[in-house]
Amino acid sequence: MTINLLPGERLDELQRNGYCIIQNPEKFCFGMDAVLLSGFSKVKPDEVVLDLGTGTGIIPILLEAKTKGKHFTGLEIQEESANMARRSVAYNGLEEKIDIVSGDIKGASSLFGASSFDVITTNPPYMTGQHGLVNPDEAKAIARHELKCSLEDVIRESAKLLKPKGRFYMVHRPFRLAEIMTCMVRYKIEPKRMRFVYPYVDKEPNMVLIEGLRDGNARVTIEKPLIVYKEPNVYTDEIYDVYGY
Amino acid sequence: MTINLLPGERLDELQRNGYCIIQNPEKFCFGMDAVLLSGFSKVKPDEVVLDLGTGTGIIPILLEAKTKGKHFTGLEIQEESANMARRSVAYNGLEEKIDIVSGDIKGASSLFGASSFDVITTNPPYMTGQHGLVNPDEAKAIARHELKCSLEDVIRESAKLLKPKGRFYMVHRPFRLAEIMTCMVRYKIEPKRMRFVYPYVDKEPNMVLIEGLRDGNARVTIEKPLIVYKEPNVYTDEIYDVYGY
Repeated sequence: MTINLLPGERLDELQRNGYCIIQNPEKFCFGMDAVLLSGFSKVKPDEVVLDLGTGTGIIPILLEAKTKGKHFTGLEIQEESANMARRSVAYNGLEEKIDIVSGDIKGASSLFGASSFDVITTNPPYMTGQHGLVNPDEAKAIARHELKCSLEDVIRESAKLLKPKGRFYMVHRPFRLAEIMTCMVRYKIEPKRMRFVYPYVDKEPNMVLIEGLRDGNARVTIEKPLIVYKEPNVYTDEIYDVYGY
Repeated sequence: MTINLLPGERLDELQRNGYCIIQNPEKFCFGMDAVLLSGFSKVKPDEVVLDLGTGTGIIPILLEAKTKGKHFTGLEIQEESANMARRSVAYNGLEEKIDIVSGDIKGASSLFGASSFDVITTNPPYMTGQHGLVNPDEAKAIARHELKCSLEDVIRESAKLLKPKGRFYMVHRPFRLAEIMTCMVRYKIEPKRMRFVYPYVDKEPNMVLIEGLRDGNARVTIEKPLIVYKEPNVYTDEIYDVYGY
């Protein structure tokens, strides 16, 4: 299959089904958070999945490879990322299984209609306007800071978009956990399962993976810790597994 | 010093300042949760501390040994436990430093007055009416199940009792985390620091330690995991430390 890479772009292998992804290192490359979210998310056979803020489409592409979901949609506001995602979908021959839609998370429930997905995944911007340095590159800034949508936008739209008892999967930063849980409860996406990602066994976690259940009851399971490094530059077996090595 | 032990009671050493505590194994003995909470709680010199639901007084006695707090009060609704706590305080010669007050958490802010403590600690009942088997022994049942007070009672009263910027320390079960955080945020005790206690590095956590700040801003630090066992029957160094061995 031929592929047209634009200046600055490269093609990366994903270690899953022979799939590849187009990325531009000057703009934004997917991180471990997206890979871990794809491992944490559960998609049952024939379920219909939406990824909010899909970027280059990494999450739908990985979930298509790992699950028997029926269809995957990725919503992305940045045209340049959406375009890369569409070309990656085509390169992998997944046009029947994955749609990349250009649009705004804030209007997602109008765009797709209420109660239209079994599963929503999202790796949203982590930083509020007040936290961290805003990247001067706009693409990176939009991916990392809540410039185009807030945590509340993501959760409010997800609550509308999910079918009753639909499931919500998000990766985020632990420092926002109180806001995340409060907001999920407010919009009736009850936190049901969480896992903290600790870079080392003796360090603070730098990511949290969360599963919510629309209209679920109040009881959450915190899973065993996910430790990334056994020693410097050596991943734990679980990380090698989730990366598909 | 002579001591009057009632039938069924025993005197246990605490490995701190030579202190001991009176317990009745047929009623309720303190667990690792109380010890870990005393290690997690920060009491600065001259601060005034209240322990809500103090049981046999384990937390004020340990905190008196470990910190330079000015005064400690333990509030307990069960007269038999409060009586044991008072005799332990006397046995350790701590009558000037620790008061054990008989009373109900639900009315604690009327009893002590608003904004009267720098620090509140609590190891409340973990189980709601719907969760777990209610112990037929009333003393154990009241300590473990929310029969006399709910999570919301504890947090609402704490919010009133704390001075502005006062600190709240609680140990609880992870499965109630969403309720805990939502309730703390509602009463403006912002979660600021949390630590999950994992029995083993590859197991789900069975306790969570939480620090809240009255009128704090929304940003929480999740600390490194607290692992209890290195291998079966062998504690990690951190656990030996907190127990004072």
